[in-house]
Amino acid sequence: MKKLIVIKIGGNVIDDEKQLSSFLNDFSSISGNKILVHGGGKIATELGKQLGIEPKMIGGRRITDADTLRMVQMVYGGLINKNIVAQLQARNCNAIGLTGADGNSILSRKRIVGKIDYGFVGDIVKINSNEISSLLKSGLSPVIAPLTHDGKGQMLNTNSDTIASAVASALSRLYEVNLIYCFEKSGVLKNINDENSVIEKLNSKEYEKLKRDGVISEGMIPKIDNAFDALKQGVRTGMICYAKDLKKAASNKKTGTRLEK
Amino acid sequence: MKKLIVIKIGGNVIDDEKQLSSFLNDFSSISGNKILVHGGGKIATELGKQLGIEPKMIGGRRITDADTLRMVQMVYGGLINKNIVAQLQARNCNAIGLTGADGNSILSRKRIVGKIDYGFVGDIVKINSNEISSLLKSGLSPVIAPLTHDGKGQMLNTNSDTIASAVASALSRLYEVNLIYCFEKSGVLKNINDENSVIEKLNSKEYEKLKRDGVISEGMIPKIDNAFDALKQGVRTGMICYAKDLKKAASNKKTGTRLEK
Repeated sequence: MKKLIVIKIGGNVIDDEKQLSSFLNDFSSISGNKILVHGGGKIATELGKQLGIEPKMIGGRRITDADTLRMVQMVYGGLINKNIVAQLQARNCNAIGLTGADGNSILSRKRIVGKIDYGFVGDIVKINSNEISSLLKSGLSPVIAPLTHDGKGQMLNTNSDTIASAVASALSRLYEVNLIYCFEKSGVLKNINDENSVIEKLNSKEYEKLKRDGVISEGMIPKIDNAFDALKQGVRTGMICYAKDLKKAASNKKTGTRLEK
Repeated sequence: MKKLIVIKIGGNVIDDEKQLSSFLNDFSSISGNKILVHGGGKIATELGKQLGIEPKMIGGRRITDADTLRMVQMVYGGLINKNIVAQLQARNCNAIGLTGADGNSILSRKRIVGKIDYGFVGDIVKINSNEISSLLKSGLSPVIAPLTHDGKGQMLNTNSDTIASAVASALSRLYEVNLIYCFEKSGVLKNINDENSVIEKLNSKEYEKLKRDGVISEGMIPKIDNAFDALKQGVRTGMICYAKDLKKAASNKKTGTRLEK
């Protein structure tokens, strides 16, 4: 089985030109099959302010109304995605930007309205792994924006951590997949204020205990849940690390937190 | 040689939801290899107003400063391109949105500053026809936004009529190409106020004469020049017609203006 690295990069790195540039140097230096999934960052929120679109939150959850969708589609799909692709091309990495609509690569369903109506948010239904694999085979590196479509003409806002996990899972039928979540911390921390308290290895049992004990903080939980989901689906390794440690993580060297089934 | 249809659709059709929907019905019903190149429309101008970005014109030519580039990148690459792709997917047409940066498909050079500094405008240097052809071979229909890149990490604004012509020309080495410019008029008109005055056939000699005589209006000239350029480069047929007549044009039936070498 051929190898594939699926890398998620978060908003904090995207917002910092220098960090992003250094990250893209590292990404383009990785040989072989690779996919980059990017998040949003502050640009959408800033543009929203300029346009008078107030961020809508219900119970701490962000709501995607029609104006917000339009805005994130522009910022994620047009501005961030194409800037990353152009910068990768400058580094001799043959990138191709995708949303879920492109090549029907990620089909989702508008989230069912329960207690909260999340608006134009898509829950992933199907990853078109053949299509993505066919792009990889022609030597392209997909760069995926956090946007999907419902197959009926509607674009939807979708969490990038979840996209990375779902793409990695689906492609694990065809590749030996290494999933790496890059972010602004050195890994999963025992003490959120101490960058030296990285948990080097974490299995799902230990993780459940740390969650119960309140050691692992709120914001990290969806990311780790997503990574463990991917491992259950057949992804070979899962890592959570500093963006600047990508090269180490990609060559399977010790860095950040390594997740084990 | 396999056939390929390259279709350009202008801003006027994109701005009208009903017209666009009907156009996309027709586009998706065309069998075989097809590429859609789209223009901008009024959305960018409207967003610009909301953001306080004044359209900058020098000598009647639009200038793309950094703010304008950012805006058109969002609107063309994110909003319009992805809406079209999602709507084509809903019609069972496996579309993939591209800017010139994606797959390095269109490399351009920032226009050299002469009397006028056009800003972030790209003049096409190279079409990566192998890359585009490889997408066509996997059954995808590229949908190209009027954006290119300079290979050094910079996105650039590029005229969509020119992109359509350059893509058609480059791919004419690999396909028998039919280039169709769809717009809001019935074709090239002898009398701009009379939709029934369509010139059914036009060769370059006749065209030069009509230009000299001032019969063909200012706005049409770049479009027709682009179409003739493509014919000189090996494109088989060139047509200029109503967007609503796309199906006729695609099946080579008599409609609009047919250009001949």
